[in-house]
Amino acid sequence: MSKNDKISMSVIRRLPRYYRFLLELKNNGAMRVSSRELAEKMGSSASQIRQDLNCFGGFGQQGYGYDVPKLFDEISAILGLDHRYNAILLGVGNLGRAVVNHVAFESRGFNLVALFDKDPSVVGVEIKGMPVRNVAELGDYCRSHQVDAAFLCLPRESVEPLAEVLYGCGVRYYWNFSHFDLTMKFDDVIVENVHLNDSLMTLCYRITEEKYPMIEDKPSEEADGEN
Amino acid sequence: MSKNDKISMSVIRRLPRYYRFLLELKNNGAMRVSSRELAEKMGSSASQIRQDLNCFGGFGQQGYGYDVPKLFDEISAILGLDHRYNAILLGVGNLGRAVVNHVAFESRGFNLVALFDKDPSVVGVEIKGMPVRNVAELGDYCRSHQVDAAFLCLPRESVEPLAEVLYGCGVRYYWNFSHFDLTMKFDDVIVENVHLNDSLMTLCYRITEEKYPMIEDKPSEEADGEN
Repeated sequence: MSKNDKISMSVIRRLPRYYRFLLELKNNGAMRVSSRELAEKMGSSASQIRQDLNCFGGFGQQGYGYDVPKLFDEISAILGLDHRYNAILLGVGNLGRAVVNHVAFESRGFNLVALFDKDPSVVGVEIKGMPVRNVAELGDYCRSHQVDAAFLCLPRESVEPLAEVLYGCGVRYYWNFSHFDLTMKFDDVIVENVHLNDSLMTLCYRITEEKYPMIEDKPSEEADGEN
Repeated sequence: MSKNDKISMSVIRRLPRYYRFLLELKNNGAMRVSSRELAEKMGSSASQIRQDLNCFGGFGQQGYGYDVPKLFDEISAILGLDHRYNAILLGVGNLGRAVVNHVAFESRGFNLVALFDKDPSVVGVEIKGMPVRNVAELGDYCRSHQVDAAFLCLPRESVEPLAEVLYGCGVRYYWNFSHFDLTMKFDDVIVENVHLNDSLMTLCYRITEEKYPMIEDKPSEEADGEN
């Protein structure tokens, strides 16, 4: 990173999108892209893109645009994707299995090193070459292995006692599907919560807004650049 | 809604969080809450909360705070959660099953009315009381039933031909887990994309930022109110 400024969280939250679009461009063999083209692809504005990418120093060149492989590498580095944090996953129900099978951990900075469940009928079963371990062994495992992060694919009520064990073993980073509010309990953890219901409610809002529009007094303050 | 102003998309994207926190307060029997308490719970600021909730008219009263059940009802109404849009789900692999089993459609504005898959070994199987239908019948089903939305729990490569069928039958609303970019293909659809990898990359960034901090020149522009 060319600049040592701390980047605002709203820019950070857009970085994974830049990563995705640049990866696609890169896989298609594109060597460069203009802020206008990138904006069109991402449903954003060219000025927003220039402003965001300026945070990481000057990759853009007037009249040339951005060097795709270079910008991709830089964004990957800023995201920390060249790291390999060791992660364990708790709960191999449908959600846990979907995560194990569909998420590309290795290219997103993580090694998935162990799976845990309490259900005796799945303990010992292999998923993606990893045996499911009994959650009763969670503390022993965490004390004898380097575990940086835990992916919580469990119901809310199952998380509290297990979070105590994990926290007691020094695990501070969580990818949390459980709806259990870890930050209310522990004040020095980093948690990314996934709330699928929030996304569905936003869809409901957008449908309702289209089907039953209200009288519009003023234009929306900003474009919805989500994608 | 007391005001007919169009609400900005960034406020809309925070509404599901208000919904969640107010639902919890309501379930715990709370009748009122101050903007300060709500801010503390949500990791936001009292002024942000007052500003957001002002968009929907004056529910707050100086010295009293907000009426919890009233504010909850109002936010539910704005989100359109009193509607029942008919939705079908495509792909009952682990992800599709996780969605069917864990998402509270009915309280989020949707009726899940049918499931589809192409795998003959699951066609006919019942999930949550619904038989999995053969995806070959998708067009017939959509033409003979009211289908508002489709939840796409399929791999990217499977989506394109099915999206043609759905679009041809008038389905315009999508909850999309597939990474297939529907808005590039159809310009009058509403799509909520779920990118689990984005959330994982953000976690990777936050771990890296904590473990390997860079020199900090200026404070972050905004607090991270995500939860």
